[in-house]
Amino acid sequence: MNAVAWSKEELVAADSEFVIHSWSKQGGLNARPIKGAEGSWFWDYDGNRFLDFQSQLVNSNLGHQHPKLVQAIKDQADTMCYIGPGFAEEQRARLAQKLAEITPGDLKMSFFTTGGAAANENAIRLARHVTGRNKIVARYRSYHGATAGAIALTGDPRRWHAEPSMPGVVRMLDPYTYRCPAGHPSPCPVCSGGPHLEEILQFEDPYSVAAVILEPVTGTNGLIYPGENYLRSIREVCNKYGIILIFDEVMAGFGRTGELFACDHWGVTPDILITAKGLNSGYVPLGAMTVSSKISDWLQDNKFWGGLTYAGHPLACASAVASLEIMEEEGVVDNARRQGERLGAGLAELAKRHPSIGDIRGRGLFYGLELVRNRDTREPLVPFNAVGEAAKPMQEINKAAMAKGLYLASNFNVLRLTPPLVINDEEIDLALETLDEVLDIADVHYDTAGGPAS
Amino acid sequence: MNAVAWSKEELVAADSEFVIHSWSKQGGLNARPIKGAEGSWFWDYDGNRFLDFQSQLVNSNLGHQHPKLVQAIKDQADTMCYIGPGFAEEQRARLAQKLAEITPGDLKMSFFTTGGAAANENAIRLARHVTGRNKIVARYRSYHGATAGAIALTGDPRRWHAEPSMPGVVRMLDPYTYRCPAGHPSPCPVCSGGPHLEEILQFEDPYSVAAVILEPVTGTNGLIYPGENYLRSIREVCNKYGIILIFDEVMAGFGRTGELFACDHWGVTPDILITAKGLNSGYVPLGAMTVSSKISDWLQDNKFWGGLTYAGHPLACASAVASLEIMEEEGVVDNARRQGERLGAGLAELAKRHPSIGDIRGRGLFYGLELVRNRDTREPLVPFNAVGEAAKPMQEINKAAMAKGLYLASNFNVLRLTPPLVINDEEIDLALETLDEVLDIADVHYDTAGGPAS
Ligand SMILES: Cc1ncc(COP(=O)(O)O)c(C=O)c1O
Ligand SMILES: Cc1ncc(COP(=O)(O)O)c(C=O)c1O
Repeated sequence: MNAVAWSKEELVAADSEFVIHSWSKQGGLNARPIKGAEGSWFWDYDGNRFLDFQSQLVNSNLGHQHPKLVQAIKDQADTMCYIGPGFAEEQRARLAQKLAEITPGDLKMSFFTTGGAAANENAIRLARHVTGRNKIVARYRSYHGATAGAIALTGDPRRWHAEPSMPGVVRMLDPYTYRCPAGHPSPCPVCSGGPHLEEILQFEDPYSVAAVILEPVTGTNGLIYPGENYLRSIREVCNKYGIILIFDEVMAGFGRTGELFACDHWGVTPDILITAKGLNSGYVPLGAMTVSSKISDWLQDNKFWGGLTYAGHPLACASAVASLEIMEEEGVVDNARRQGERLGAGLAELAKRHPSIGDIRGRGLFYGLELVRNRDTREPLVPFNAVGEAAKPMQEINKAAMAKGLYLASNFNVLRLTPPLVINDEEIDLALETLDEVLDIADVHYDTAGGPAS
Repeated sequence: MNAVAWSKEELVAADSEFVIHSWSKQGGLNARPIKGAEGSWFWDYDGNRFLDFQSQLVNSNLGHQHPKLVQAIKDQADTMCYIGPGFAEEQRARLAQKLAEITPGDLKMSFFTTGGAAANENAIRLARHVTGRNKIVARYRSYHGATAGAIALTGDPRRWHAEPSMPGVVRMLDPYTYRCPAGHPSPCPVCSGGPHLEEILQFEDPYSVAAVILEPVTGTNGLIYPGENYLRSIREVCNKYGIILIFDEVMAGFGRTGELFACDHWGVTPDILITAKGLNSGYVPLGAMTVSSKISDWLQDNKFWGGLTYAGHPLACASAVASLEIMEEEGVVDNARRQGERLGAGLAELAKRHPSIGDIRGRGLFYGLELVRNRDTREPLVPFNAVGEAAKPMQEINKAAMAKGLYLASNFNVLRLTPPLVINDEEIDLALETLDEVLDIADVHYDTAGGPAS
């Protein structure tokens, strides 16, 4: 409306008094007040500009305030903001049709939610109904959302604070070859996927397992890329026992890894694909569950037991239709691939100067830098689930980068580098320069006693 | 974007091939294609106009395409569609401050989600952390959302298809005086609230119960209004044992019942208030959890273990700020009260002509008509959880109303009458006329053998 914009002081006062922020103690939070955002940048009330090298929560793939995307939202706002999920509505149907076209294999019908968590919840419930089975295999190094079902699937320690939640989840280890949980003989049964899954199924009863859910590339929990045959071997084991394979591409989907979908790198198609974030860059809350032809057929004669007031929200769907058009028109996936190569090459250079870089993992614009105290021992710069004093070195890096105008994120000892997919050469180079400076903070903790950087 | 709008045929084809609709078998669904909506009306591709007497899913409180609300969304789209939940942002802080002002008692800080289910999930988790206890008391005739935690709280049969989900939920019966589950002696221990809750707590260990959650007025599951002292007595029992009281006003909040919040009718304040729907009329997906000063204080020094990518989404928050301004400027709550009186008076008249009206329950624009086969036996027109043939009479009423341009909804044998709060006299009268016609369908099933309509 026409209210006078607040001063920084008014905003900060109201925010700290009245707003509860995610995953935080509210006292002393001092959330930074943000005034505006455009492209790969956002700025505060003091004129400080930040290069958004995490795309906020890895959702602002098209950058901030993309003019065509903003226009599409305004157009739909003028047309019809909302109509109930029971009706047929053009933007909702266009988006579903488009997803059937661009998603891999025979993925066909879509159900729309308002984010990733609820989409995962619907996938799990549907997989249980389709198979008539109950157990779900999920991995430890994972984040699938914060509602009771999604957090039960999640492996990361945020789950601890929601337990007990939905029962029936069985854990599988991760293809984390840099710190292989099985000691990494070659070929490692865990890191190669299928054999590890088979081992677990043998103890769980493979015919009691409804679904395997995983992030084809693990996002929040450390940017973990599977080996060449991993997804295929998981797919084969699922086929063997009639288990539904769910890929959670909430973070990795829509060009983030330099392919439209992360699973496209390995040519493996899930039975259910979950997306959100990059689907519409988060301009309006949206998530999607897209299911195979076989499940679509099953749904013709069987009830879908899921729903929410804002399922298939027209404003959200319109923004996703526009977003997908923009991605095609502007060659966004190509740009992600190209800029990812530039970023990867730059990081390889940095690794020559910064012994604290233990591992560089990435494709497209989905990179993780694993920081260590020694390259031989691979001792992490900060331990798993570090808090307080132990977490300091990583916090200092993020803070120093922010002070230099670079917005980063990290998970324990892994720095996440996930800029908008529309980023350009200069911005990549700028980020690399700042990284070069702040990685000195990690190098200080480098333990040469463990042997020289090799 | 500039794509040519689809024809009805294109839309219907794409919708039935690609869109999964909530709570339905997808085959033969034939979702009606909707072209536009304005005020209390929406229309299809054949020029049929429908008076939206359910406000879609009881969310379109300000009606469709309210020009000021649309403008506010467009303005915020131009300003900043999204910024991450970790930052301070003006619309988010304004909305939180406004909620602290207008919600009852000392309710203070707010956390924002994208709908009702996730807001309830966060309330439950927070109540568990604040109290250090696990059990939650919830009622049978209730709907709290479809994610694993929210559906576990839910009593309605949709829960059956999500079991087992979150553990720890204990059931309490409902103050459903028309069909009192305790046989309704006077005073009835169930319908008066506190005594029934005490009875249950004695068997559950009152000090193991973190929260009681309830809809102050039950929405979806039958428009059930509690007796005068119900909420107060529940509040007292919660106080006695240090149990957190959560009111789910997702449907009843923001003027729906003719007061700003349903609990205002009885002057009872919860420790946590859950809202969505009417908060911004659903133009952008949004839900809120607003907590007492005491819990706000607790959150200063204790971590809030919840979050989602679209927590405090600026576009959604801006639409809610505008929506609350519109409600004040246009006296929307007063209109709901006034039109509710008109509707109530009209329904009382209908009851004289239609013996099938067993009970009329409502305040503001939150009415339920309980249809029966006999007023003395109170045999419902269709049984609880009716499907197939048994459900027909209610379906026929809804269908006949739709054919006459009136969009209704029902739950088993209860017709729900929940029009936009901006509805006018003529529209109320038009709905009453159509109801008068379609209630003949119910009357046909009236069983005079059970005694005359009294
Ligand atoms: C892989 C993955 N799945 C699911 C989610 C949850 O999505 P949302 O926050 O929209 O519920 C996230 C969020 O970060 C995610 O990264
Ligand atoms: C009382 C109540 N609580 C919660 C919900 C769930 O809200 P949502 O559909 O936005 O998740 C609803 C939806 O109808 C509701 O009526």
